[in-house]
This record gives sequence, structure tokens and C-alpha cells, in this order.
Amino acid sequence: MLTIFKARSRKTETGLQVESESRGFKLIMDEPRALGGTDSGMNPIEALLCALGSCQSIVVAAFAKAQNFKYEEFHVELEGDLDPDGFLGRADVKKGLQEIRFTMHFKTEESQESCERFADFVQSTCPVENTLLSDVKILRTAVVKD
Amino acid sequence: MLTIFKARSRKTETGLQVESESRGFKLIMDEPRALGGTDSGMNPIEALLCALGSCQSIVVAAFAKAQNFKYEEFHVELEGDLDPDGFLGRADVKKGLQEIRFTMHFKTEESQESCERFADFVQSTCPVENTLLSDVKILRTAVVKD
Repeated sequence: MLTIFKARSRKTETGLQVESESRGFKLIMDEPRALGGTDSGMNPIEALLCALGSCQSIVVAAFAKAQNFKYEEFHVELEGDLDPDGFLGRADVKKGLQEIRFTMHFKTEESQESCERFADFVQSTCPVENTLLSDVKILRTAVVKD
Repeated sequence: MLTIFKARSRKTETGLQVESESRGFKLIMDEPRALGGTDSGMNPIEALLCALGSCQSIVVAAFAKAQNFKYEEFHVELEGDLDPDGFLGRADVKKGLQEIRFTMHFKTEESQESCERFADFVQSTCPVENTLLSDVKILRTAVVKD
């Protein structure tokens, strides 16, 4: 059954700072001073990496039992390549992330092969990874003058 | 010049709760109780929507002057459609977001046409929107047994 998730982002009065909110949970994003911000939070590209890593982690936690995979601890380290010359209009390079890499860490008694099989399952299941890898439609409904 | 952004996500000891970190900034994600979580934070799909809305907001703030666009306030409302039956393996539907919609709100004296032209610029510039719309490579570097 289709579920609709919602969020709202509002530029604050402070430089490039943005306050977002979803289901009552708030999240401040900003840019480092070197990029013109006030460095009061992670930036949206870093938040995107956190969303991917968190989604993978939740899939690990939610599906391990059903997949007969036992583990004690899990974390994932992620990095993404972006060339700011793209969105700054200085060079004809991609404006978004070019590549995302990650390394998954399990504390577990399972074999290496079993870890990799479970990692495959996690990747194929993870909603955020599937969103990034597929053609999600992005529609601007309206531009409203308040 | 290529810049590498980094993040780390770690499943905590509490249910489906995940703590992410980037450049020292922390972010807790979780799922609602109905989905097996402890509802201590927004979920990764909601965080993805916040990343998109924040990225658009930062582009608005950072580029308005150079684009000769004057405004007093900006916010954006976003929603995304996802069918949990996909990642739960209950139906052969897409596991990620199917569609993202958003409405931009400007408090401004600019004309409607000028607002829409600036909105076009924001969308074409926004690194997160460009990441979602393009084929970002996602590579698993390794699965490590700690």
C-alpha cells in the first residue's frame, strides 16, 4: 500500500542555515564557513550519505533474524565524490554526486561468505539505495508566492 | 576539484535506532513503533526528503543575488511515495521512492514568472536533486568482520 512521507525545509534568518522537519523531528543543515555557511550542521550531501547508511543499518536490524544472520554490532562508513565546480558553474562536470562508496562492518561469528550474502540482501532491499539507483520522478507541484 | 564527503552510521543497542555522524554532526534516525522502531527520530526516507529540501533551500540562499532574485523568506514542502510492500517482499513493486513532489514558497515582490525561472535554476543546480536524477555509482568497497 502506497505510503506518503512528508518533510518541510525552511531557510532560517542565518546565512545558509536550513531547518527541516518531518513528523515533528527537526534537523538543522548548513554549510562550512569556507562555503559561506555558519557551520551549524552537516550539509545536505552529508545528510544524504547518512540517510543511505541509516537505511542500510535499519535493514540489517530489521531483517537479520528472518535471513538467519546473527551479529552483535553493525556500522557502515560511507563516502561520496562531488565536484563543486559543477554546481558553481565553473566546469561542465556533474552537479551531483559522481560515486558513493561504503564499507560495511559486522561484529559477528558468521563466515565472510555469509556476511557478503547478507550484505547483498541488505543492498537489494534498502529503500534509500533503491531510490538512488532508480529513476525516481521529481515533480515540482507549484511555486507559490506567499 | 573533486571533494570527498564522509559519513558513518552505526546501529545502536536500541531496536532499529541508528546514529549517524558526519564532520562531528550527529543525527539519530529510527522508525515509528508501528514499523518496529522506538520512534526516536525521522526515518531515512524522511531524511532523504529533508536533504533534498535543504539542498534546494541552500541553493536559493547562495545563488539568489547572482541571479538577481530578491526574496524575504523561502520554504519548501516535500512528499514522497513509497510502497513498503516492495522492501518487505510482499509485492513486486519498486523498493525505493516512486515519486517525489514538492511545492516551493517564496515571500517576495518578484513576479510569478521570475519565481518560476529562479525555481528552474535552483532545481538544475541543486546537488541532491542532480544526484537523485542521475545514475550515481554505488560501490561496496568491502564487508569487514570486526
